[in-house]
Amino acid sequence: MNILVTGACGFIGSKVANSLSDFAEITTIDNCTTGSISNLPTNTIFIEGDCQSSITIEKLEDKEFDIIMHIAGQSSGEISFEDPIYDLQTNTQSTLMLLDYALKHRCRKFVFASTMSVYGDGHTDAVSEQSELNPKSFYAIGKIASENYLKLYASYGLQTTSLRLFNVYGPGQNLENMKQGMLSIYLSQLIKSGKIVVKGSPNRFRDFIHVKDVVNAFKRIVSYDENGYSCFNIGTGRSWMIQDVLDMLKDIYGKEFPIKYVDKTPGDMEGVFANITKAVSLLNWQPYIEFKDGFANFVSWGLDKNVH
Amino acid sequence: MNILVTGACGFIGSKVANSLSDFAEITTIDNCTTGSISNLPTNTIFIEGDCQSSITIEKLEDKEFDIIMHIAGQSSGEISFEDPIYDLQTNTQSTLMLLDYALKHRCRKFVFASTMSVYGDGHTDAVSEQSELNPKSFYAIGKIASENYLKLYASYGLQTTSLRLFNVYGPGQNLENMKQGMLSIYLSQLIKSGKIVVKGSPNRFRDFIHVKDVVNAFKRIVSYDENGYSCFNIGTGRSWMIQDVLDMLKDIYGKEFPIKYVDKTPGDMEGVFANITKAVSLLNWQPYIEFKDGFANFVSWGLDKNVH
Repeated sequence: MNILVTGACGFIGSKVANSLSDFAEITTIDNCTTGSISNLPTNTIFIEGDCQSSITIEKLEDKEFDIIMHIAGQSSGEISFEDPIYDLQTNTQSTLMLLDYALKHRCRKFVFASTMSVYGDGHTDAVSEQSELNPKSFYAIGKIASENYLKLYASYGLQTTSLRLFNVYGPGQNLENMKQGMLSIYLSQLIKSGKIVVKGSPNRFRDFIHVKDVVNAFKRIVSYDENGYSCFNIGTGRSWMIQDVLDMLKDIYGKEFPIKYVDKTPGDMEGVFANITKAVSLLNWQPYIEFKDGFANFVSWGLDKNVH
Repeated sequence: MNILVTGACGFIGSKVANSLSDFAEITTIDNCTTGSISNLPTNTIFIEGDCQSSITIEKLEDKEFDIIMHIAGQSSGEISFEDPIYDLQTNTQSTLMLLDYALKHRCRKFVFASTMSVYGDGHTDAVSEQSELNPKSFYAIGKIASENYLKLYASYGLQTTSLRLFNVYGPGQNLENMKQGMLSIYLSQLIKSGKIVVKGSPNRFRDFIHVKDVVNAFKRIVSYDENGYSCFNIGTGRSWMIQDVLDMLKDIYGKEFPIKYVDKTPGDMEGVFANITKAVSLLNWQPYIEFKDGFANFVSWGLDKNVH
């Protein structure tokens, strides 16, 4: 089986690519802006470049893939406000280029890394895949457009799936990027300065999912054969307040640290958490890692990484 | 008052620009791919170029506008299937470039020419602005993304309005473009060959609105001062079956002509018609031209144009 994984040097993409390389031949693309080549699986054909560029697409040399997993893209809502045009190109135009390639080269299945950001605010209950979309960032708007393209290509016979990832965390997350990943930002601050600056209210809430559980969802899609377009929430179904997360971090860290609250970032969401019934029933998938365990393990990894 | 009108060489844009030039100083942009410079109002500052290009935006030389009316863009659902990337750039990236300019240059109001295509199929009743969006073309997906950007910029204090135009027709429509404008395509075929090829079923239905009524809607927005984002259906609220339109055309034309039915174009909609309550009540706007009158007048214009 031939699988193309984009964003394969990044946090999620690299773990997906490595996991799939156990049973498939993996081709990878990454522009290496935030990810590292050292994260790639061994024996992969690697193409360095942007997926929104025809130069990169041409380097695929008309190779036919069974599955394309498009995970590449700028992944911070906050950063999307700094360069909305780049965000549109990296998150939306890239999808269009790859869907076009998929259709022309008889690819069977296209999997897209979408985001809980598409839901925006105004949801007090867990959001299901049918919940209203109220995008609050350029990032979220571009992801919705990409999902709409997936629906359109499904009408041409391509199987397309969007995985709406909630707050993903875990070992391997980039501790140098201070604008992406709520938990990795807190952890990085704690390691570097022994204190934490929280952008926004402690009453916001999130659904944190461990990257291993996310990788399992991507693997499930390999054997999920349903025609048309489908969309799944990939979260845990549990909501955590930022205040509780910080308390938990104090327990894990073993001592007090100062916390400063400042204004929230543009487009930041009040909160959202997932109804995962659909993924559980149709993908036979479920998250295994309890947040308390996963978070403790993640913090240990970060502290340990800093020592060595 | 300073107003920027994009797409000012085109069918709708030129009529809007001319109409506004009675009371405002008009700057215009057009890439002249389908429109004609001869359509521009006199005494306008004209910039030739694509709105998605920073080169064009730089030519505005930091001029401050009271209102930007963004009407430029590839306007055929059918053509959007031939080059989806171009469609994304001309219809979505362009909006992002101009919204960014508007905000940075203290523009008060941003008006966007959107489309009934955003609704797609599955609506048996008249669609209101709250109806579900089921985009069936790249064109429609890009227009929805643009509307979402308008909502986002509204949160920064820019007044943004999207006018969802239904099937616009009228004198001045491009009779050379055989992929845009249902009525102009039929009229053009009749003039050129004395017969009509209909792409799709005669049971499809549309809401046809005369370009003069559309121009009036754009003018109403000049004095509509409501903060935030607003969206209006600009149609007549009446639904016409294609079969009835063709019968009407025979009456106007005064003799029979052969009709051939072929497959529908990609992304073509079964039908949609507008609930215009919102525009009528909030904009104090209403369509004045009865379709039967407007259509007869349009056909006369086309036949007359062909004679001279």
